[in-house]
Amino acid sequence: MKPRLFTPGPTPVPEETLLELAKPVTYHRSAESKAILAEMTEDLKYVFQTANPVLTLTASGTGGMDAAINTAIAPGEKVILLTAGRWGERWKNILKVYGANAVVVEVPYGQVVTPAMLETALAANPDAVAVCATLSETSTGVGHDLEAFGKLVAKTNAILIVDGISGLGAMECRVDAWHLDIVVTGSQKALMLPPGLAFVSVSDKAWKKIEAVAPRSFYLDLRRYKKAILESDTPFTPANTLIKAQRLSLKRIRAEGIENLWARHAKMAAACRAAVAAMGLELFPVRPNSGLTVIKVPAGVDGSAVLKKMEKTHGYKLADGQDAMKGTIWRLSHMGYTDAFDVLGAVAALELILLEVGFPVTPGVGVTAFQKAMAA
Amino acid sequence: MKPRLFTPGPTPVPEETLLELAKPVTYHRSAESKAILAEMTEDLKYVFQTANPVLTLTASGTGGMDAAINTAIAPGEKVILLTAGRWGERWKNILKVYGANAVVVEVPYGQVVTPAMLETALAANPDAVAVCATLSETSTGVGHDLEAFGKLVAKTNAILIVDGISGLGAMECRVDAWHLDIVVTGSQKALMLPPGLAFVSVSDKAWKKIEAVAPRSFYLDLRRYKKAILESDTPFTPANTLIKAQRLSLKRIRAEGIENLWARHAKMAAACRAAVAAMGLELFPVRPNSGLTVIKVPAGVDGSAVLKKMEKTHGYKLADGQDAMKGTIWRLSHMGYTDAFDVLGAVAALELILLEVGFPVTPGVGVTAFQKAMAA
Repeated sequence: MKPRLFTPGPTPVPEETLLELAKPVTYHRSAESKAILAEMTEDLKYVFQTANPVLTLTASGTGGMDAAINTAIAPGEKVILLTAGRWGERWKNILKVYGANAVVVEVPYGQVVTPAMLETALAANPDAVAVCATLSETSTGVGHDLEAFGKLVAKTNAILIVDGISGLGAMECRVDAWHLDIVVTGSQKALMLPPGLAFVSVSDKAWKKIEAVAPRSFYLDLRRYKKAILESDTPFTPANTLIKAQRLSLKRIRAEGIENLWARHAKMAAACRAAVAAMGLELFPVRPNSGLTVIKVPAGVDGSAVLKKMEKTHGYKLADGQDAMKGTIWRLSHMGYTDAFDVLGAVAALELILLEVGFPVTPGVGVTAFQKAMAA
Repeated sequence: MKPRLFTPGPTPVPEETLLELAKPVTYHRSAESKAILAEMTEDLKYVFQTANPVLTLTASGTGGMDAAINTAIAPGEKVILLTAGRWGERWKNILKVYGANAVVVEVPYGQVVTPAMLETALAANPDAVAVCATLSETSTGVGHDLEAFGKLVAKTNAILIVDGISGLGAMECRVDAWHLDIVVTGSQKALMLPPGLAFVSVSDKAWKKIEAVAPRSFYLDLRRYKKAILESDTPFTPANTLIKAQRLSLKRIRAEGIENLWARHAKMAAACRAAVAAMGLELFPVRPNSGLTVIKVPAGVDGSAVLKKMEKTHGYKLADGQDAMKGTIWRLSHMGYTDAFDVLGAVAALELILLEVGFPVTPGVGVTAFQKAMAA
């Protein structure tokens, strides 16, 4: 049986990138290594749509989130936290460790924080120094309107800090044009690499804010990464084989063009949603994003058992809900090195399993709806 | 020309480990992934010679050092810092960021901190809560007597925190028997993997000390890693392809046997030193360790130019001195997936280049001395 990965991170990695990872290791302080880091950084700037250098940390995405907070927020400072799921809660927990005074704007799982909610929170908290938001809330499948958030925050002295870990590179996100001050992403989502690298962009407004904050981390202090990248270097021995491989995956994005890539993901996501509806299933998120489709487990169906069966019988590995959402949703990723034909197969596998567990679905309705949407 | 890596990190990686890195990415929360992490952790315990779980962080070695300090040391606490080079200074800089009250015991580059110096420092500072030391000071090539340090610190309430990044797996180091409370290492040295993972062991004495310290990091708080590893998991998405590959490199160490490995490295290092002496060169460290040989650049020779020439002409990549030591020493690594025949080639290349730059050496004296030592 052929294993196929549809979890919203890690995601499949292109063959040439995998083969790069099998090449002999080289020294990370050579001129050649610096040139590779510089090249990757330029391509990251393109993916982020920013003119600022993008910093590369050897860490999980959470390491990048930690770096954003410890570097930019002083203890006791007020931060507006927008949360719509597990990853918003991750911001909350990081803010807590660093002693920020978090003003929490929370919506139930599946909902989104609206620009109006943010506007109200900003008006009520003029002393807030930052807003923490999530581009793609991978735990529920919603996407936030970061463009609107950016417009609102740009009018204030606060900085906008964004978890773009599973959204960046899968849905439209224009870091500079949208005034996103700090954006964090990880290598293992839309950027088509195994986990291990976190990338962080920082605006001039954010750097100015950072100036007044005393260092609170050694390894995760963004200032060290900025200083190093100005010399095409990293402050600490980086995961340099991942950097070399990341460069190749980014070349794919360059070749496709970021706007084409956004459009392709949007179309694929729409087709997936059409298939879901045609199979008689419902979406979980009110404002779905293009990186993954999150489906409500229908009443009477054992959600976790369906996923296990799909993997065991057909090799398709989707993700279950996390924590309280376990068994209640199915999360199907279509970001990075996953194309429409891959997703079509996942829809077909889901149809077969639904039939097997006795959920009434006419064979072919899902794949037909998918095809129609793609042909439109 | 054939490139050959002799830098003291990264080091060469076995072929089967590299090929593992080229395999398709899998989901990190599956039962299979947990089993792999558990297996790797068992093998790490063997390499560390500890009964405590070894924690795996997705980070550079410095991330592990940061984690040790932020998790175990409260602000204002007194820490005795033993430093003999750049990596001791790394401890100093981390302690500074975290507000520790560091009592610095410093020796010039090339020298070692002796057990007597530590004994004096402990007697003068009975209120010290920790001692920071370095197993292999890679910047100068010295190895410290951690067994003696451990005996001294074990008699006190302080914990012994060790940077074992380039020493562990290349020279004798018995974490439990020597009473080393926190030991940090990295994947890219003797453990035969590319950079990207840091490993940290923590003794019961250290966990007790940690209990009273308030969290000061989110991503690098060792408590999170301990809690997760008890369920064969990681707190954050780990560099899981590196973990799968690390398992294979550790199997090699298991197969060889850790004591055989220490003996082989010691013999290879002794042969390398014999070759150095035979070529009329001098060692830089007073107490060389088995992971690398550090050679003084002889008077009248341009040290950096020799290294560039060796790489350009013969493909051998050695490391220059760092910062103030640049051009004054050559650092030749012989740890991990580097055997005596590899090192013999490096000696031969050095002989040829010395001749080329006019340093008087009889062709063959280095390699002969090396062979004699290996045959002894």
